[in-house]
Amino acid sequence: MAANTFGTLFRLTTFGESHGPALGGIIDGCPAGLIIDTEFIQYELDRRRPGQSEMTTPRDESDTIEILSGVFEGRSTGTPIAFEVRNKDHHSFDYDHLRDAYRPSHADYTYDSKFGFRDYRGGGRSSARETLSRVAGGAIAKLLLKESGIQVNAYVSSIGEVDAERVYTADELGQVELSPVRCPDLKASEKMVELINLLKAEGDTTGGVITCIIEGVPAGLGEPVFDKLQADLAKAVMSINTARGFEIGEGFNAPSMRGSAHNDIFTADRQGKITTETNHSGGIQGGISNGAGIIFRVAFKPIATIKQSQPTVNRQGENIVLPSKGRHDVCVVPRAVPIVEAMAALVIADHLLRNRSARM
Amino acid sequence: MAANTFGTLFRLTTFGESHGPALGGIIDGCPAGLIIDTEFIQYELDRRRPGQSEMTTPRDESDTIEILSGVFEGRSTGTPIAFEVRNKDHHSFDYDHLRDAYRPSHADYTYDSKFGFRDYRGGGRSSARETLSRVAGGAIAKLLLKESGIQVNAYVSSIGEVDAERVYTADELGQVELSPVRCPDLKASEKMVELINLLKAEGDTTGGVITCIIEGVPAGLGEPVFDKLQADLAKAVMSINTARGFEIGEGFNAPSMRGSAHNDIFTADRQGKITTETNHSGGIQGGISNGAGIIFRVAFKPIATIKQSQPTVNRQGENIVLPSKGRHDVCVVPRAVPIVEAMAALVIADHLLRNRSARM
Amino acid sequence: MAANTFGTLFRLTTFGESHGPALGGIIDGCPAGLIIDTEFIQYELDRRRPGQSEMTTPRDESDTIEILSGVFEGRSTGTPIAFEVRNKDHHSFDYDHLRDAYRPSHADYTYDSKFGFRDYRGGGRSSARETLSRVAGGAIAKLLLKESGIQVNAYVSSIGEVDAERVYTADELGQVELSPVRCPDLKASEKMVELINLLKAEGDTTGGVITCIIEGVPAGLGEPVFDKLQADLAKAVMSINTARGFEIGEGFNAPSMRGSAHNDIFTADRQGKITTETNHSGGIQGGISNGAGIIFRVAFKPIATIKQSQPTVNRQGENIVLPSKGRHDVCVVPRAVPIVEAMAALVIADHLLRNRSARM
Amino acid sequence: MAANTFGTLFRLTTFGESHGPALGGIIDGCPAGLIIDTEFIQYELDRRRPGQSEMTTPRDESDTIEILSGVFEGRSTGTPIAFEVRNKDHHSFDYDHLRDAYRPSHADYTYDSKFGFRDYRGGGRSSARETLSRVAGGAIAKLLLKESGIQVNAYVSSIGEVDAERVYTADELGQVELSPVRCPDLKASEKMVELINLLKAEGDTTGGVITCIIEGVPAGLGEPVFDKLQADLAKAVMSINTARGFEIGEGFNAPSMRGSAHNDIFTADRQGKITTETNHSGGIQGGISNGAGIIFRVAFKPIATIKQSQPTVNRQGENIVLPSKGRHDVCVVPRAVPIVEAMAALVIADHLLRNRSARM
Repeated sequence: MAANTFGTLFRLTTFGESHGPALGGIIDGCPAGLIIDTEFIQYELDRRRPGQSEMTTPRDESDTIEILSGVFEGRSTGTPIAFEVRNKDHHSFDYDHLRDAYRPSHADYTYDSKFGFRDYRGGGRSSARETLSRVAGGAIAKLLLKESGIQVNAYVSSIGEVDAERVYTADELGQVELSPVRCPDLKASEKMVELINLLKAEGDTTGGVITCIIEGVPAGLGEPVFDKLQADLAKAVMSINTARGFEIGEGFNAPSMRGSAHNDIFTADRQGKITTETNHSGGIQGGISNGAGIIFRVAFKPIATIKQSQPTVNRQGENIVLPSKGRHDVCVVPRAVPIVEAMAALVIADHLLRNRSARM
Repeated sequence: MAANTFGTLFRLTTFGESHGPALGGIIDGCPAGLIIDTEFIQYELDRRRPGQSEMTTPRDESDTIEILSGVFEGRSTGTPIAFEVRNKDHHSFDYDHLRDAYRPSHADYTYDSKFGFRDYRGGGRSSARETLSRVAGGAIAKLLLKESGIQVNAYVSSIGEVDAERVYTADELGQVELSPVRCPDLKASEKMVELINLLKAEGDTTGGVITCIIEGVPAGLGEPVFDKLQADLAKAVMSINTARGFEIGEGFNAPSMRGSAHNDIFTADRQGKITTETNHSGGIQGGISNGAGIIFRVAFKPIATIKQSQPTVNRQGENIVLPSKGRHDVCVVPRAVPIVEAMAALVIADHLLRNRSARM
Repeated sequence: MAANTFGTLFRLTTFGESHGPALGGIIDGCPAGLIIDTEFIQYELDRRRPGQSEMTTPRDESDTIEILSGVFEGRSTGTPIAFEVRNKDHHSFDYDHLRDAYRPSHADYTYDSKFGFRDYRGGGRSSARETLSRVAGGAIAKLLLKESGIQVNAYVSSIGEVDAERVYTADELGQVELSPVRCPDLKASEKMVELINLLKAEGDTTGGVITCIIEGVPAGLGEPVFDKLQADLAKAVMSINTARGFEIGEGFNAPSMRGSAHNDIFTADRQGKITTETNHSGGIQGGISNGAGIIFRVAFKPIATIKQSQPTVNRQGENIVLPSKGRHDVCVVPRAVPIVEAMAALVIADHLLRNRSARM
Repeated sequence: MAANTFGTLFRLTTFGESHGPALGGIIDGCPAGLIIDTEFIQYELDRRRPGQSEMTTPRDESDTIEILSGVFEGRSTGTPIAFEVRNKDHHSFDYDHLRDAYRPSHADYTYDSKFGFRDYRGGGRSSARETLSRVAGGAIAKLLLKESGIQVNAYVSSIGEVDAERVYTADELGQVELSPVRCPDLKASEKMVELINLLKAEGDTTGGVITCIIEGVPAGLGEPVFDKLQADLAKAVMSINTARGFEIGEGFNAPSMRGSAHNDIFTADRQGKITTETNHSGGIQGGISNGAGIIFRVAFKPIATIKQSQPTVNRQGENIVLPSKGRHDVCVVPRAVPIVEAMAALVIADHLLRNRSARM
């Protein structure tokens, strides 16, 4: 089934529920000799954490990672790197009203349909808290990529109907962490904050779009025909909670373009080094990286928990009303930035290793 | 690596180049006892074939499938179902001018970067002819799904800047094969044909969008956390040549919606049967089907081969001019309809089998 | 790579080194609704633990398991079941003399050859302590099998040159835990103990053979052609430290038998129920279980750590003498009984789930 | 399920029944640039073919391989290498008496138990003819290994109760193909032939043992903990029809050895090159190759088809008598030599590629 494992050679297997003892995962297939910088892994986890600013979420949690295996004298040994983050004590009485209710557009009904019952406390395995393990695993992938000169950077390009003015390059993202919504366009950033404040007052939520740029990927990564690089990236990010769309390069703009406009013309410099004049392809052609920057976008829907009472049904098939209760995040898209980066890093690290077998 | 294998339990492995002796594949994991209707498989292949109308492609090829194993007295035996389609004789002299040239936005450069050399005749493995094996494998998946009351239907919703007026339901697609561009909106269909004729004269190409509807999927399919149903669908269709974007449900429209508007309210009828009033989720919640129709869209870029000369480079790193030559398809999106359906059918068939292990 | 994952649908991924913070694993693919009896898991771990009797090993360790996820209100939820056992504080100064030495017939040299360096404390990942995770995962598999009426039982059939007199049936193994060497033949058991005491005085070690019997397996488990049931069992147990041989049914006795003697004749009773008169096949024909008891044997070599000084080499390629030092187990085969059972249980549980897709 | 796929990176997927149109397979993951010597592949197939001498089997079949994809200008392109062998016309009336009968110790009953029905002609997928695809795939693996200086050689060491006098080295196997039973001990070879002639007259069959030697494997191949090299070799050969036992190094001799005798003492020469004085480990320690020759043995049972009438049952659960009929092979072990080599080559090729990711 492998439903909780991601990757072919560089593999992440994750576990954990919102209100169980711990969440974590295992990286299997990390080459030996990589320096495992645990402070960096913790830094990445902190980027994902709720409560970083008032923009995202009011809860205060400190998620401290512990490495359980696979590292000796600071370096990966080639054996599985297991890690965990303990959950703090949660009082489960908060969730008793959800024991039987199916919250609209949550996973309650579908989990019950599939498994016959569910851990209803905080969403259980379907909680976005699960992505913590992705960020930790992705941080190890980033360490691997850094050794090959590859950088993965994402930012918020839209929240609700507010869009960043243009596409930003990796070089321009140095200050993106200073924006409370992780948008490099400071004007748009301010409007996004305003929108979030407005929706907070209304008890409503909104979605957004994240743009991800991967620089330094050598030509040659990606495995035709099914494991094309864009296909694996699509799966990676579409497996994140609330992701609803993926596009590479020109994406949904491409269908209305002409071939003569969309084609990326190759040119060679005096040394015979080959590049493209444009990058409509988003760095991938025929499913394989061409050495240009990889660029993709991910659409996220508004989260389903709103501070408004809603009609719904329960396990018994009765129509009920779900009261507004508990915490309320207006927009989690800024916190999804490190998650998108993590999933992209896992894909590229995996393909970097897979590509070692491309030739004799 | 498994780059040419798709699926976990219901698995398709494909092979074949545009100008080699044959293309084909193996379905492993098909349950025993399924009636294998070879006429239906051939019908699906014929839908994919070029030359069905003047709209798509001028070549005339007849692709005849042969089943090599795994079927006895008309039924699957539980052993691998291999199939092949022989290529007709191609005169390879047509391709000598491509031996060294890197065509813009094709896979020539990236294949060379990865593998060190390539079969340059007709694109080799990167040719869209590869999708023939997907359609044949997908046809077997469709036969399996039909036994469970599941139907997969796709249609062209945009070509270039011409869009179908609205979203169509499965019931309305009965006549879609009558449209030369497989668009159920007859007015839009006419405009699409006009656009294609115009671009043919200009020697240019265009892309398009395909909408896919899957009816009859029971609640419960999909495996959290990485193998969410939309994640596997995204990978499936993003692995098709020229696919550039994927969206499920509201897709890229979702980010600017409010949670209160996007949430699909559950209701129960008198028998306690649960449905949703709306279907913004596109039939999937928490990565698992909820019993509503699954709906997704795929964006395709214009194909790269245009009837215009283009500057480019060659293997030696020299700037050259690629002459306009050979056949010229303006828009292959109508032919991609059975390919999208095939990939979707493979995903659903796989998850149908995987779901058999969900409970004790 | 998946080197630390075992299984296709019911999957165990393990982690942990002898002297790291913890060992453990993740079971992914366990169907929802299984009652997870943690006392039984702990009991199985206790069976594997060193120091159960003076026969096996003098160390006293208490390995306490903690379930981290995947269980709610006592039952599996269908999500990953993670577990861990914390290592007690070890003083690593014990191992400084092994930092550079390559102990004969240990994994020191080969780990260095593969990974470039190694965690030399207590064997690191190559320590038999790794099998703890197998026993815990196998215990969950046993719980699953019990629900289908399947029992996995193993016993020691040889230690050194002392053999049990005959093959025992599952029914006769009720008292096997009372034998300090887990041999149901009490006379042989006594001689085995004598042999171990003798070798202890000599500072030497010995191997042994374990016989495993699986009762209650329905006809139909096993997947031709590569995943034949005996092939998966062979891999499972040959991956245990110090395993050197595997045989199913008549095993190495079969080559010198005649076909007329080896064939298991089918008979049907009045109700048409089919059984075989003999079981030379060991319960598997054509790679698929036939409903008879599955029986296989595993040969284990003597462990490499002896209480005698030995010549060897070090990392620098110098010939050195390795002093006799530290603890000394004469024979670990009795402790391998629950490990063999665990690996067999994992295989059968996996095939039980895989078989759910055999037919329409 | 992947039941018909073998390998992680260098993968063989096979298809085909004894009496279907064709058998064959797909090698996926072969690095680009390998010279594909089709004459060598055909030579290997010829070694497996029945009718090479009167010793093995009286049928005359010529199995001609055709490569369908993945090779361009004589070299692998990095894309799937598909191959097939067409079956000659078989008149299926020969098999009508087997439509309902369950032959003793064949796969008839177990296939029916699993799949509900079966292709009863010539054993269908359970026929040893299936191994043809293994030999073809293994031949490609051998070509890959040869480039790394690795040689895989097997020979018959026992038939019935006749044993070769000693273990032979790879150097001594040059003339093994001259022995009609592929045994390098000419005296034993003669006795084996006598035994086979005797059993032919009696209408009976016998089994045998094959020894396999792999020379030139560098230290470092094998992936702890589950994919230990001996574990993958065990699975590989135990998946061959009629294999009943596997042992590496001292195998079933190891349990009665003392640790002091079994340990392989390391020595370093003046250049610091490390070898072992003995090779009781069979070239693998801790699951990883140590640079010494790998040596293992496989036990095969007598084949089940004898020229004697036998009692058995049919699908209806009735006791019947199966008449002696059709062809009769006394001993197929000599023909299994190239099959064992093929499976071993597939394992080593796979681990050679996997090991490329062992270090940064």
